[in-house]
Amino acid sequence: MESGSAIEQALENAVASCDTLGCPPRLAAAIRYAVFPGGARIRPRLCLAIAAGCGEPNSPLAEATAASIELLHCASLVHDDLPCFDDADTRRNRPSVHKAFDERIALLVGDALIVLAFQNIARAFADAPQRLPGLVLALARAAGAPGGIVAGQAWECEATAPLEEYRRLKTGALFVAATVGGAMSAGADPAPWLVLGDRLGEAYQIADDIRDALGTDDELGKPAGRDADLGRPTAVGELGVAGAVKHFERLIAEANASIPPCPGAEFLRELVDLEAQRLLPAQLLQRAA
Amino acid sequence: MESGSAIEQALENAVASCDTLGCPPRLAAAIRYAVFPGGARIRPRLCLAIAAGCGEPNSPLAEATAASIELLHCASLVHDDLPCFDDADTRRNRPSVHKAFDERIALLVGDALIVLAFQNIARAFADAPQRLPGLVLALARAAGAPGGIVAGQAWECEATAPLEEYRRLKTGALFVAATVGGAMSAGADPAPWLVLGDRLGEAYQIADDIRDALGTDDELGKPAGRDADLGRPTAVGELGVAGAVKHFERLIAEANASIPPCPGAEFLRELVDLEAQRLLPAQLLQRAA
Repeated sequence: MESGSAIEQALENAVASCDTLGCPPRLAAAIRYAVFPGGARIRPRLCLAIAAGCGEPNSPLAEATAASIELLHCASLVHDDLPCFDDADTRRNRPSVHKAFDERIALLVGDALIVLAFQNIARAFADAPQRLPGLVLALARAAGAPGGIVAGQAWECEATAPLEEYRRLKTGALFVAATVGGAMSAGADPAPWLVLGDRLGEAYQIADDIRDALGTDDELGKPAGRDADLGRPTAVGELGVAGAVKHFERLIAEANASIPPCPGAEFLRELVDLEAQRLLPAQLLQRAA
Repeated sequence: MESGSAIEQALENAVASCDTLGCPPRLAAAIRYAVFPGGARIRPRLCLAIAAGCGEPNSPLAEATAASIELLHCASLVHDDLPCFDDADTRRNRPSVHKAFDERIALLVGDALIVLAFQNIARAFADAPQRLPGLVLALARAAGAPGGIVAGQAWECEATAPLEEYRRLKTGALFVAATVGGAMSAGADPAPWLVLGDRLGEAYQIADDIRDALGTDDELGKPAGRDADLGRPTAVGELGVAGAVKHFERLIAEANASIPPCPGAEFLRELVDLEAQRLLPAQLLQRAA
């Protein structure tokens, strides 16, 4: 996915609209801090790959969609890290937003990024408005309740949570938005891309669980073993490391098999395999053996 | 504004989409708690009045827009009440959301309501998509940064805040969204309605400052004297009660004068005057004299 610079530029364009003269300076700085530098940008890369697969490479519409999806992701990280949730002091190897700024600013940054995600696609699709309602709905479904990140996070506030559902909401939903949104931004039918997003999202969450159980703080850029410490439902807790790895591999195979016939199908399959190796590097798996 | 039941129904329609089987039960309950029963619903009433003034009374599109604006307002109240901001235990004469549920749920309710606001208009405007980009931008501008509620709240996190700007962002922005959004939902030019929203918004904020300074907890449904306690910039602090009242009256006059020629102009002028009396009742003003 050689789409990195396009994604950074699309994020820059989105954030720049917040970051104007007249924005409270600490808020402006914190919004930028929450978005740059990013992590792997896997969701927006996936979104662009699908749009290209659907025949629209280098599309400003897809790039805006990808950026909006990443903004929703960044918002969820900032709010998840807050003291009332994960109480995480670090993220991506540096202080989390509420540590670098303060809790109030972190709360507002999350709110601002959610708003910005919708604002950004509305701006981009002003000349293709017929694609906008579906796209707003796809992003909203992934971000909100009952089917998105907010609902996933809210399952942590219940006495018992359905593991599959929890995992699907906390991570899978935004991966589905990435594949479906990539197709929609290209004016293609989103339905054939739903399974790919769903399987990749679950695979990503399971890989995250495995890395959380096996990795070190340095490798993760955040405290390791956090899920176990917080008593959170995880695939490793339920299936053990070996079982979780097996499940991960099955999900990647299903993701690959789901890719519908399209000009970029071959490329997309290679990319899924590469992504799988990036998510669970061989040397990490050796540690599990 | 005999639009109360239409607004409640539009809010019910919006919230019902969160509130389905599969939503974490405490989140679903808290979302409902944050939205019902409401306060005066002044923003959505204003939105519907403008749409009617523009020739589209009883419009489902305007009702959805009005509901989305109220959802953004409810979201801001829930987040404002949190311990890291106002730390308000009560709102509308009962426990605030984080007191009735907990802080985590309150954080998520605010996020969910912001998402729902955009989801709700996207759903409503699926068959009128050409009106959607502008409407999303108007709501986003009012909610986010640098020109909306989030930015207004962020000024509280700065050492010094420009009072006019702060007031405009924290309240005026969503009033502008109400007038402009009402016109847009009716397919009318929003520009002539901007001043009305701006002046009413500032008048509302000043009335709020005056009530906060003169009212009792019972009258307000929340702790009185909060602004002074928190050392927040207010019109009363800057102008004194008498000066604030005078400024309020000037703003109402400007609001009235700004109403552009339209079928409902006479009705809208009466309504602005009625609203002014509701915001600053005569018996409250006697207390100030």
